[in-house]
Amino acid sequence: MRLTPDAAGVYVIAPTPFREDGALALDDIPRMVDFFLAREVQGLTVLGMMGEASKLTEAEALQVAHAVLEAVNGQVPVVFGVPSSGFAAMQALAAAVMDAGAAGVMVAPPGTLRGDAAVLRHYAAVAELLGDTPFVLQDYPQGTGVTMAPEVIRRIIDTLPSCAMLKHEDWPGLDKLSWLRAAEAEGMRRVPILTGNGGLFLPDELRRGADGAMTGFAFPEMMRDVIRAHQAGDVERAADVFDAYLPLVRYEQQPGLGLAVRKHVLTERGALSCAAQRRPGARLTRDDLADIAFLLARLQRRLAALG
Amino acid sequence: MRLTPDAAGVYVIAPTPFREDGALALDDIPRMVDFFLAREVQGLTVLGMMGEASKLTEAEALQVAHAVLEAVNGQVPVVFGVPSSGFAAMQALAAAVMDAGAAGVMVAPPGTLRGDAAVLRHYAAVAELLGDTPFVLQDYPQGTGVTMAPEVIRRIIDTLPSCAMLKHEDWPGLDKLSWLRAAEAEGMRRVPILTGNGGLFLPDELRRGADGAMTGFAFPEMMRDVIRAHQAGDVERAADVFDAYLPLVRYEQQPGLGLAVRKHVLTERGALSCAAQRRPGARLTRDDLADIAFLLARLQRRLAALG
Amino acid sequence: MRLTPDAAGVYVIAPTPFREDGALALDDIPRMVDFFLAREVQGLTVLGMMGEASKLTEAEALQVAHAVLEAVNGQVPVVFGVPSSGFAAMQALAAAVMDAGAAGVMVAPPGTLRGDAAVLRHYAAVAELLGDTPFVLQDYPQGTGVTMAPEVIRRIIDTLPSCAMLKHEDWPGLDKLSWLRAAEAEGMRRVPILTGNGGLFLPDELRRGADGAMTGFAFPEMMRDVIRAHQAGDVERAADVFDAYLPLVRYEQQPGLGLAVRKHVLTERGALSCAAQRRPGARLTRDDLADIAFLLARLQRRLAALG
Amino acid sequence: MRLTPDAAGVYVIAPTPFREDGALALDDIPRMVDFFLAREVQGLTVLGMMGEASKLTEAEALQVAHAVLEAVNGQVPVVFGVPSSGFAAMQALAAAVMDAGAAGVMVAPPGTLRGDAAVLRHYAAVAELLGDTPFVLQDYPQGTGVTMAPEVIRRIIDTLPSCAMLKHEDWPGLDKLSWLRAAEAEGMRRVPILTGNGGLFLPDELRRGADGAMTGFAFPEMMRDVIRAHQAGDVERAADVFDAYLPLVRYEQQPGLGLAVRKHVLTERGALSCAAQRRPGARLTRDDLADIAFLLARLQRRLAALG
Repeated sequence: MRLTPDAAGVYVIAPTPFREDGALALDDIPRMVDFFLAREVQGLTVLGMMGEASKLTEAEALQVAHAVLEAVNGQVPVVFGVPSSGFAAMQALAAAVMDAGAAGVMVAPPGTLRGDAAVLRHYAAVAELLGDTPFVLQDYPQGTGVTMAPEVIRRIIDTLPSCAMLKHEDWPGLDKLSWLRAAEAEGMRRVPILTGNGGLFLPDELRRGADGAMTGFAFPEMMRDVIRAHQAGDVERAADVFDAYLPLVRYEQQPGLGLAVRKHVLTERGALSCAAQRRPGARLTRDDLADIAFLLARLQRRLAALG
Repeated sequence: MRLTPDAAGVYVIAPTPFREDGALALDDIPRMVDFFLAREVQGLTVLGMMGEASKLTEAEALQVAHAVLEAVNGQVPVVFGVPSSGFAAMQALAAAVMDAGAAGVMVAPPGTLRGDAAVLRHYAAVAELLGDTPFVLQDYPQGTGVTMAPEVIRRIIDTLPSCAMLKHEDWPGLDKLSWLRAAEAEGMRRVPILTGNGGLFLPDELRRGADGAMTGFAFPEMMRDVIRAHQAGDVERAADVFDAYLPLVRYEQQPGLGLAVRKHVLTERGALSCAAQRRPGARLTRDDLADIAFLLARLQRRLAALG
Repeated sequence: MRLTPDAAGVYVIAPTPFREDGALALDDIPRMVDFFLAREVQGLTVLGMMGEASKLTEAEALQVAHAVLEAVNGQVPVVFGVPSSGFAAMQALAAAVMDAGAAGVMVAPPGTLRGDAAVLRHYAAVAELLGDTPFVLQDYPQGTGVTMAPEVIRRIIDTLPSCAMLKHEDWPGLDKLSWLRAAEAEGMRRVPILTGNGGLFLPDELRRGADGAMTGFAFPEMMRDVIRAHQAGDVERAADVFDAYLPLVRYEQQPGLGLAVRKHVLTERGALSCAAQRRPGARLTRDDLADIAFLLARLQRRLAALG
Repeated sequence: MRLTPDAAGVYVIAPTPFREDGALALDDIPRMVDFFLAREVQGLTVLGMMGEASKLTEAEALQVAHAVLEAVNGQVPVVFGVPSSGFAAMQALAAAVMDAGAAGVMVAPPGTLRGDAAVLRHYAAVAELLGDTPFVLQDYPQGTGVTMAPEVIRRIIDTLPSCAMLKHEDWPGLDKLSWLRAAEAEGMRRVPILTGNGGLFLPDELRRGADGAMTGFAFPEMMRDVIRAHQAGDVERAADVFDAYLPLVRYEQQPGLGLAVRKHVLTERGALSCAAQRRPGARLTRDDLADIAFLLARLQRRLAALG
């Protein structure tokens, strides 16, 4: 099951489960996958930045990949983040996960790239390296330090057929989305565009033409329901659902701290047995936990009122 | 009227009004000041980053300062941002605005500072340079590139008596707030802490002990009403008011684009006669304007339902 | 005397003289200018980054400009650095110095630019703003944070006729130089390329086709003599002269500290009456001074041996 | 053979040999090690930034480590760079190389650390993780983005007994060296300080109290002879030797391009059979090769004249 041009909906970014002592919690993976599939997501993305991929050894990354693919069992496509700076490690992991049944890989630009030409040369080399493996272009300047103008993204998509999707996570990024969709009207090859940033601009992004979200908010059903309402033409309903969750979305979107919030909420919800991050990682204070409890209680009331 | 240790509430960050052709719109200043005073703000902050201060000549900055102080006419304290990198320009502007009746100046760290010791040396030199002028310490790492650990902020406050306020704008910053308030319980000198980030975490910040907000959301009454509800002990009401505005707060908080949104909304509300930024500056697209109209319409309905 | 397409040789970057207390030392300017003219430089560049321009008020910058132009008295062209981030201040200073007899202005990209298209848009706006004032494009990524690929530089030169010179200061930059000279062979408009980095690669840059140096080493005669030997076809002699000075060039090229070294040596040589930088600025330690004395003594012996 | 407090001299940073097609050239390692040992270096440092460590898979890194340790065969201590951002990979590689006979590991700060307290916390966690493995503290701000003030380095050394050496590579860094040596006179624990930056400031660093160099210039005998002359009290001779090599040192010290230069020269000298870097990596142009040939020819003449 490889990424196809009609990919859309929610590709949830899955965290990597650890135990309190930092050991990999592989036996948490089936329950986590079940949790996501029960929310009817269209796909999973694993070993991304929010998946603490850089803290795993290569052997552990493969263990995670196999465990996720086994649990998913072909029900939805699974995309895997691969290392961005070293071609050998990128190629090795990409080959291994594709062999094991992945739908594609996600490739961020290494932070050392400067200038449009350098970005284009890099992705041409990546595409050559990966052969026919479909790859997701990750545009996340605040995380990678690399800004890709819309013209550069267009060039990558138009010249590299294996670029199968855009993970859109620039900030601000709405006008970039509009630019790309307008470019398609003028002949740019169409690829699915899924958006990130924890869903913080999801209804706006859908109105600009996004095909869905690839991000990791702890309530994937928010993204599912916003997208469904939008697709049904009910932009007010989409915004109503979104607004109910927005205080928590915002709280979960804090850089550095957000993953700790997300894992805590996922643990509260039963998707994980332990919220720990592997070191080095942020830890929630008592005040943080009180904030989250306050926001979750308010969310329940808002959802009840929303019907 | 100088900054005092009991400063609190809303210090609204005022934009600088321009005409469509980029000329300074000094005659817009009285109406803008009236607009803010009518929302019962406790103070104004002028010539900050969102005030396009770096685009003004020195003569223009002085014109703006005099026009604002004249319009405010002593009703509330006014803080002025001063240049951070050049001591001569900092001292010249600080002296001029204090002579004209300013309450204090706001000083951001220059982006070249690296390491705690360098930050401490810099602010010691700033305090010596400014003499008895009260200064606001601006902690805004995502804008300045300089991270100040809570221990460093404590040292600045404890060793420099003219440091009269902390403008707190780290992100994430809630635990920094808690740390500083806890340090006061252990003997750190207490200064008012007003928070930034367009109000995106205002109710949370108040629960952590913030004294108010110094930021520039186009509906200052949101900040006023959230603070009032919080001070009245009604944290749910504070959150209710906040949540109503949050979709717009979020939209206005987009880096690079946010000021264009804010000036547009302020113009719609009659606070400015023209939303233009001086070049170089962002411009709203038709899609952006449609987003804002959508959000404003929803806000009106939410406020009506809120009562 | 405006910048012309045949500009070449040494455009020495002049420091701004201060007194020990940080006051502007305008009366040092004639002796400094005489010192440079006696070394037969082809031009001067004033109010650049090494000129501590960001520490001057606008009035002071104009005082410096007038004093330099008066002292130079039309003997060589003078280029002035102008502020990069604010168009109003850029335009005001550019107009003032051109009125007073400047040959052109130097414009660095503001550090917020990201992506080729943003850089091109920015310089198009700059050129429109400056009208027919010749401007020097400053390519100095390690100082500005903005990387301009050779393709981008070519576009700026080919589309903006008032771009009159390239100040080349990328690092590494030799292959960029070769690329640009090769592009001229294929139709790119030719502009003079003067190189920076304190002269650290001057003979190599000349072999790649540079027209000279625009930088501020405290012995401008090194640059003059290297260029003369190179122009005479004697690349070994050019390298011999360069090598004699290289230990000091390297020492003066330390980021942050280099200007203090340069001002100290210029003061030792009688070009300035005081080596002070305006605050904030680096200060030499006793060990630094011992290093410089050691290097200067060795330089004298090397020059004597060189003949 | 573990790092000891009297470590000194030249610890040469070894590149990782590859074939033209990017495959690991393990059979080049014995000849490379022989080349270095024949230059009488006091130690080797492997898998550092210049060793293209981030381009190796974990299995390859181990292969390199074993091959180097086998070739060195206990004649000198060998230090291995370990990954800085992920504790699991750091611990795994450190344990493996120490088991195989390494003298210690080198640990750079991850680029996300901000503020003195964060740096101190990080290294405390690293030391706890590594147990009794001696580690080299790598202070290389221009490569890592993390500035460590001298006070921070002192705190790390004084509080973490397993910190066995400082790799000093700040720029400028001479006054930091002096500060640290002065602090030792006031009770700071003494550790060996070896310097980097390709040797660009070696004689100056020795005069400030450095114990040697840990860097990778293609003529390790330059560093050996400079250190010997310095230790013999002949600072002029030390500078004479250094100055002869300085034009090439400078050329090899170009960021991004330098490793290509170094591998080319090492290949010319017979230390490697192939100068290739694994992709992505810089490639020398014909003009670069001509520069290097020019500099090497001049070096031979200088060395002949020096005697």
